[in-house]
Amino acid sequence: MQIGFIGLGSMGAAMARNLLESGHDLCVFNRSPVRAEPLRNAGATVAARAAQAAHSAEVVFTMVADDAALESVTFGEMGIVAGMQPGALHISMSTIGVATAQDLAAKHRAAGLGFVSATVFGRPDSAAQRKLFIMAAGADEHLRVALPLLEELGQSVGIVGVDPWQANLVKLIGNFMLTVIVETLGEACAVAGKGGVDPMRLVELLTNAPFNAPPYKIYGPSIAAQRFQPAGFALPLAQKDNRLMLAAAEALGVALPLASLVHDRFLAVRSQGFGSEHDLSALAHAALADAGMARRA
Amino acid sequence: MQIGFIGLGSMGAAMARNLLESGHDLCVFNRSPVRAEPLRNAGATVAARAAQAAHSAEVVFTMVADDAALESVTFGEMGIVAGMQPGALHISMSTIGVATAQDLAAKHRAAGLGFVSATVFGRPDSAAQRKLFIMAAGADEHLRVALPLLEELGQSVGIVGVDPWQANLVKLIGNFMLTVIVETLGEACAVAGKGGVDPMRLVELLTNAPFNAPPYKIYGPSIAAQRFQPAGFALPLAQKDNRLMLAAAEALGVALPLASLVHDRFLAVRSQGFGSEHDLSALAHAALADAGMARRA
Amino acid sequence: MQIGFIGLGSMGAAMARNLLESGHDLCVFNRSPVRAEPLRNAGATVAARAAQAAHSAEVVFTMVADDAALESVTFGEMGIVAGMQPGALHISMSTIGVATAQDLAAKHRAAGLGFVSATVFGRPDSAAQRKLFIMAAGADEHLRVALPLLEELGQSVGIVGVDPWQANLVKLIGNFMLTVIVETLGEACAVAGKGGVDPMRLVELLTNAPFNAPPYKIYGPSIAAQRFQPAGFALPLAQKDNRLMLAAAEALGVALPLASLVHDRFLAVRSQGFGSEHDLSALAHAALADAGMARRA
Amino acid sequence: MQIGFIGLGSMGAAMARNLLESGHDLCVFNRSPVRAEPLRNAGATVAARAAQAAHSAEVVFTMVADDAALESVTFGEMGIVAGMQPGALHISMSTIGVATAQDLAAKHRAAGLGFVSATVFGRPDSAAQRKLFIMAAGADEHLRVALPLLEELGQSVGIVGVDPWQANLVKLIGNFMLTVIVETLGEACAVAGKGGVDPMRLVELLTNAPFNAPPYKIYGPSIAAQRFQPAGFALPLAQKDNRLMLAAAEALGVALPLASLVHDRFLAVRSQGFGSEHDLSALAHAALADAGMARRA
Repeated sequence: MQIGFIGLGSMGAAMARNLLESGHDLCVFNRSPVRAEPLRNAGATVAARAAQAAHSAEVVFTMVADDAALESVTFGEMGIVAGMQPGALHISMSTIGVATAQDLAAKHRAAGLGFVSATVFGRPDSAAQRKLFIMAAGADEHLRVALPLLEELGQSVGIVGVDPWQANLVKLIGNFMLTVIVETLGEACAVAGKGGVDPMRLVELLTNAPFNAPPYKIYGPSIAAQRFQPAGFALPLAQKDNRLMLAAAEALGVALPLASLVHDRFLAVRSQGFGSEHDLSALAHAALADAGMARRA
Repeated sequence: MQIGFIGLGSMGAAMARNLLESGHDLCVFNRSPVRAEPLRNAGATVAARAAQAAHSAEVVFTMVADDAALESVTFGEMGIVAGMQPGALHISMSTIGVATAQDLAAKHRAAGLGFVSATVFGRPDSAAQRKLFIMAAGADEHLRVALPLLEELGQSVGIVGVDPWQANLVKLIGNFMLTVIVETLGEACAVAGKGGVDPMRLVELLTNAPFNAPPYKIYGPSIAAQRFQPAGFALPLAQKDNRLMLAAAEALGVALPLASLVHDRFLAVRSQGFGSEHDLSALAHAALADAGMARRA
Repeated sequence: MQIGFIGLGSMGAAMARNLLESGHDLCVFNRSPVRAEPLRNAGATVAARAAQAAHSAEVVFTMVADDAALESVTFGEMGIVAGMQPGALHISMSTIGVATAQDLAAKHRAAGLGFVSATVFGRPDSAAQRKLFIMAAGADEHLRVALPLLEELGQSVGIVGVDPWQANLVKLIGNFMLTVIVETLGEACAVAGKGGVDPMRLVELLTNAPFNAPPYKIYGPSIAAQRFQPAGFALPLAQKDNRLMLAAAEALGVALPLASLVHDRFLAVRSQGFGSEHDLSALAHAALADAGMARRA
Repeated sequence: MQIGFIGLGSMGAAMARNLLESGHDLCVFNRSPVRAEPLRNAGATVAARAAQAAHSAEVVFTMVADDAALESVTFGEMGIVAGMQPGALHISMSTIGVATAQDLAAKHRAAGLGFVSATVFGRPDSAAQRKLFIMAAGADEHLRVALPLLEELGQSVGIVGVDPWQANLVKLIGNFMLTVIVETLGEACAVAGKGGVDPMRLVELLTNAPFNAPPYKIYGPSIAAQRFQPAGFALPLAQKDNRLMLAAAEALGVALPLASLVHDRFLAVRSQGFGSEHDLSALAHAALADAGMARRA
């Protein structure tokens, strides 16, 4: 299939390469062109503009950093909507806000284009190994086109609903649950540590017992060791997702006290100097600091 | 080995039977004697008093409902301390408060008796299948005696520290983490449901993705369905453990905002009429009700 | 002085009338023209467009409902900026967000116009009696013009700082403090009532003792009686101000757990059906409902 | 009237002196006898034991530090219950827990003695000037005796209910409201300060406007200046009252999220080294520290 792929960060690049290796014709675009070179060497065409990558594609994937980046590559004179053929399909895989997804869906519909949100759980290495968990939402006719492609990218593809933004909502819920786990581990390590139980031992015991899901195993040791670098999931990006979750919940009229607590924790740790070079796990600094257990004040 | 076993609820009975089947001589005691009969039929001696069950035992296990029950079977004229031989060991497996455990340890030491806290994660069926996760703490000389026995009861035995109460702390931390998962699922189902995403579908997607630890899988469907009975882990018992966690954290000087939030949720759902016939999952009613999504007001 | 006055709600109308009675020449504008008639009868000129009301004015006051309304009357072809003479001064008295105020100040500066934020505490009857508490911020040269006029409108005028948005911040802080008082009274009435102490008696005792500030006296009896109508300060407007406070705090990097709690309470009571016909005091319904003490479910 | 007075701290001593000056015969007792000397010089008899101070009294007042101190002077061989004549009345003015008050009432009733709780708002200087606000609860026949005496001690005496503990509940609610004001001021000063508005100016503006109740005026300037000494209301005593409030609310089945938040703040600031030499206002350190605005880390 003729595919456009926009956004070649560590996630997008791995996914684009998988599509290429599955035999599709890819025309790729990345704002910073140097990241497109490895894909050119692997056989992809490299476009100079997003519109150009979309031009002859039946399906255009986007995987970019945030709402603003997605709006920028989608709309405008050189955006993909300007380049797409009538009836072509845009599969948006970025973690964006519900309101933005609603706006995108409406504008694609008005332009006679298809739109599917397909959000992912997994890190770049999972993307490379086609092990992503994918949640897709959109109209049946569009999902019919999207699903076979998405199945080439992950280990499972779940259908969320008929409105594309519902997939974005589920992704935000997942990231919300992740941040709550980080806060939980922070509080758990604080009270264990102050009780003379080595936090690393605590994490080992708990993740060997019922708390054996990947987020506990990934974040637990970092938090126990108070080792908040490198930034696997950069703190400000996680904070942005918390903001998007709160906005979506507010629009739906739902109070999320846990998300509010995490919101306050983000602000507190940012004020202590944690930033883009730190991982989401640095959120746990707040609980540790409140207990007088933080290594760095 | 000659073993006393006090407390034959669904957990204790399963554990006592396993010890018996491993070839130990058991003298058992339960406040309500009828629960001892199956063990008598399986070869155990049944004592009329806790003291009597402890009398010729090298090791006495206790697995009772709460702090008061443990204090009652341990102390007093007919308690196990009155019955134990000098140098014998008490292995306390109940979920009790840190202060109670500290007090028990001190009193056993003063009486020339050994004391180990060995707390467990797992439900009665895991106990029956020797699949419990066990966390033990105590002096080396006592752990040396306790470990081989504990290994007959579970799939793993972790050493927490030298102070028995540290195992109780870890157990309370685990239960605290469990309640946070329940609250998280409640908030997640509320916002998904109000967004038109079927909560059951949400839970399926998330537990098929990174949130695949047993607590998510056990509590997720109940919460999505708002089916809070039967009481696997009865709401008031979980509330009691939250109280014990907050008390332990306060004594250690640690703020646990998540435990405070859960504390308030317990009070709210109890005031809505949820009680001992409901499961811990009923905690999620609060988030659902706040969103106007509760099936029962 | 030649004065333009935009926004003749119950607050604005009372203030405009006071300026008129102090001897100024007023040209007034209101989106819904019928509200301008009483002022026309009292001697004011009535403009058909905001720009026209601003045209010959040395100072233009605005007192409108929210950020959008203020942006609408300020900018655009028929807005006051289009009508104002170079060097004229805009005194913005509405409760708006910090970011909007920053944007307004920048645009006025760029257009060669003065801009002062002067926010008010007080209800319409205080406005009528020139009893408002006013907080003003802006450049010295603009405050010099604004202060004598503001002193005609209130019992005190405090200078907050040189950046207009700082007066908006202080107003939002005041409203934030108000909402915390409402939540406090809700929790206090819930626990008193469940303890058999008549909430009305409690409020009487406390407001006769150290809690004698107007907000306790105004909101206390309504909350004790669970009488949330009429809407003195309409619930959705108070919710909007909470949103503006949280946005301002987030931009400044400050966690406000109390504002987060109130945010969640707003969402909860809105989901129970409280809306624009209800007063801010309805926020207290949440605490009362959690305690099983709410009269209306 | 023949009066016994137990507890001569700064509050109790001022109250005892007022009763003496009103013409009553006082027999006083204080654990540390040196504090009784000024009252002896003013005409009081000084007892060596609490029981002795109660012996010939129609009414015995107690004004001591906490639940344990009250139980200690009330019960035991040398306690006031042992000394009181049948039908005499105990007026308990200390800030104690609801459960303790319930226990005291029951034991006095069983001993044929009267018991009234009469709690106070006000500082030692208010006590000296008979300006206390007093909240009394008890059976009518006991209140009839107590009220004329209480009126000699304060500017107002409110009747709370027929159960003595209800007066203790109202006192705890008042102190709860006080701590929420402190937290509110901490958050307000944090966001103002980070916005370039001098916190002291903010407090001045707000307390000159609707937030003019004594707690805002007393705690506002201390918090704005981050001057948490001397300890007018010592931090650990305020923390104890928060604990008593949470316990009372839990017993009544009421969630108090604000009290939970304050509970966590107390723990956080205690872990930062604030203690008995610091004032309740130090609670605000937490909000300021979270914002990176604390003067002392």
